[in-house]
Amino acid sequence: MLTTALPPTRPTRSSLPRLFDTVADTINLAGGLPDPELFPSIDISDAMRSMLRLGGRTLLQYSTYRMPDALAAAIAGAMEFRGASVNAAHLIPTAGSQNGLLTVALAFAGSGATVLCETPIYPGAAAAFRTAGLHTVAVESDREGPTPESIRTVAADVRRTGGRPVLLYTNPTFHNPTGRSLSADRRGDIVEAAASAELTVIEDDPYALLSFPGVTIDNRTAPTLHSLDPQRVIHLGTFSKILAPGLRCGWIESPAALADELRTVAEITTLSPAPLAQATVGRYYAKHGWLDLVDAFRTVYARRAALMDTQLAERLDQGEWEWQSPRGGFYIWLRRRNGYPTASVVEHAAAQGVSVVGGSHFSLADEHADGIRLSFSHVPDGSVVEAVTRFAAGVTAARADETERAVS
Amino acid sequence: MLTTALPPTRPTRSSLPRLFDTVADTINLAGGLPDPELFPSIDISDAMRSMLRLGGRTLLQYSTYRMPDALAAAIAGAMEFRGASVNAAHLIPTAGSQNGLLTVALAFAGSGATVLCETPIYPGAAAAFRTAGLHTVAVESDREGPTPESIRTVAADVRRTGGRPVLLYTNPTFHNPTGRSLSADRRGDIVEAAASAELTVIEDDPYALLSFPGVTIDNRTAPTLHSLDPQRVIHLGTFSKILAPGLRCGWIESPAALADELRTVAEITTLSPAPLAQATVGRYYAKHGWLDLVDAFRTVYARRAALMDTQLAERLDQGEWEWQSPRGGFYIWLRRRNGYPTASVVEHAAAQGVSVVGGSHFSLADEHADGIRLSFSHVPDGSVVEAVTRFAAGVTAARADETERAVS
Repeated sequence: MLTTALPPTRPTRSSLPRLFDTVADTINLAGGLPDPELFPSIDISDAMRSMLRLGGRTLLQYSTYRMPDALAAAIAGAMEFRGASVNAAHLIPTAGSQNGLLTVALAFAGSGATVLCETPIYPGAAAAFRTAGLHTVAVESDREGPTPESIRTVAADVRRTGGRPVLLYTNPTFHNPTGRSLSADRRGDIVEAAASAELTVIEDDPYALLSFPGVTIDNRTAPTLHSLDPQRVIHLGTFSKILAPGLRCGWIESPAALADELRTVAEITTLSPAPLAQATVGRYYAKHGWLDLVDAFRTVYARRAALMDTQLAERLDQGEWEWQSPRGGFYIWLRRRNGYPTASVVEHAAAQGVSVVGGSHFSLADEHADGIRLSFSHVPDGSVVEAVTRFAAGVTAARADETERAVS
Repeated sequence: MLTTALPPTRPTRSSLPRLFDTVADTINLAGGLPDPELFPSIDISDAMRSMLRLGGRTLLQYSTYRMPDALAAAIAGAMEFRGASVNAAHLIPTAGSQNGLLTVALAFAGSGATVLCETPIYPGAAAAFRTAGLHTVAVESDREGPTPESIRTVAADVRRTGGRPVLLYTNPTFHNPTGRSLSADRRGDIVEAAASAELTVIEDDPYALLSFPGVTIDNRTAPTLHSLDPQRVIHLGTFSKILAPGLRCGWIESPAALADELRTVAEITTLSPAPLAQATVGRYYAKHGWLDLVDAFRTVYARRAALMDTQLAERLDQGEWEWQSPRGGFYIWLRRRNGYPTASVVEHAAAQGVSVVGGSHFSLADEHADGIRLSFSHVPDGSVVEAVTRFAAGVTAARADETERAVS
């Protein structure tokens, strides 16, 4: 019924890969999940309890999309790590970054609007843009991320062919899925390119605080794009990677001129934020700050990333596979040097008992089929060796298949 | 920047009236808010605490859009009051009904799709449809709600003029803002009319359990539209009116053929539901059931509705104003018999210290300007008399203005 109702010209909406599902006897390297062992569940429980017991019934009532002071302080505290100051008047609460992405997409939706996307791309971003009816087009990236030249060229191409380039989407720090980060210089260049092409930039920044110990990501090495051009860049942040995703709390820091519109659309997506969850974030921050918790996450992820990196180096043929050693975030992005698609590797890895995500999931049009994303954030230390062993067995099996097919 | 980027043909997105804001020295009859005194905040706090302390870290992790068993049981328990059984396989969790509305709207969005709307209409529904890029068109209603004839006629008109009528939106029981309910017969007729016009029906049903003591709303007097035609009707439910809105938990019960698509779109709106909130609803229900809590809400609202009804009858000129005495829900809908717009009444009432909502907020195209919505659910008993006194003073002042203008 639904299908017949859809006109053929409608942009395709990608669905999200099923990353959070758990499968028996399988080690999950697929989901971009934080390590739940580090969630401060007792502190969260205590915060909720004392607020509700102290008469916080308004925390169970509908709420408004004005940013609560305690949450604004928690956001400012998180952005301080990046050396970025925050204007509370332009902060809009979201039910997580994905909700923020859809909000921005819907605010800009209209016939013919196009969003320029770095690829590989977080699938939730592509899905949000398409669900909102925006057109998507890829810009080229190098080892850091999107190139300013490509932004200019693609915007001009879209315009020349009658399109309306309006937005640029990027995840500039510890990018999902590649782990790459834009240098300070490149950040300036990208914002400049966006300005010359009259694009509003969506800076999707969930992983930026998760630099590994010894890796400096601050305002000097990697300023937020928003701080470089507050009137052009929409910054999306979340507490899902530095506290607990289940609270569903994130934020948009908006250019002044867009704040009212984005607040209106955010309200239309859910009517009301969850005030208890917001207050819990605020109270956690007021009591504990972010430093210890974020350091705990960084330390654990750095250890697992190093372990996985070493294991991959030992077990994979580096004539066949290449990757960058991660410096932060959740992911290792493998690519086959020969450009072969990895779909068969993903299948064989699953048969060996390890789930990973094929590169096509991060594409706009089936590019990056030679990639594979491995998530190290969520797999217990003790399972990393086993996971990579299984994965390598999957690679071997896939290659045997491929050789056979090539021969026969 | 945003404004210039929007093409002139884009459907207007209405924003929501600012109902949940609190203003000093003002009694709020504007917001459709449940009474927070009845929120079982200690039980909720205890449920959260014990689940988190018992090792429920997965409740703070990302979750999936599969319906948890405990939540499905809580939904089934709520729908039992209506005599409706629930198919758990077709239940999709939402962050409240509004999130469900946007999800449905986005799933059906595409060039030219039109949703037929009963009016006056809940502003969040109109805003969701327009934000998704759907066209909206009014169908006529009588004292019960939308008429089958109008559904047929309007769908045919839209089709004849090249449009694509796809959806019918209705809030059939204790309707916001009028309080009216469809009879059993009318429900059958409407579903039939929708079928003949090939429309999928959105049944937005947040208030259905809040019948006042003595008022029977069950499967015989008012079956859910969904139960009458499960393959045609999308049912939207919420725990916001029978437990606590701040948990942001609701659901979609979908026709089988649409369930996968709606689940996919729901995921794109927020990536993950809030598992702690969902588990809290499930645990509350498992321990307490809904009966006592819902009865407490019904009793309190019935008392306030009766008080407000009596006060209005005493203080308003019934030659000028008409309304139905509410039988459930949150609202009294006043209309001026002479058809005069109420904007001036709303303003004068605010000046007297009581906030109400003018009828135009519930319109698609400025119809219903002669209406005013009063919310009795949220105002403490002791304030009802004072609230109506202030409102009546506002009416008198507005009328003086109008008379003066008419004379001069």
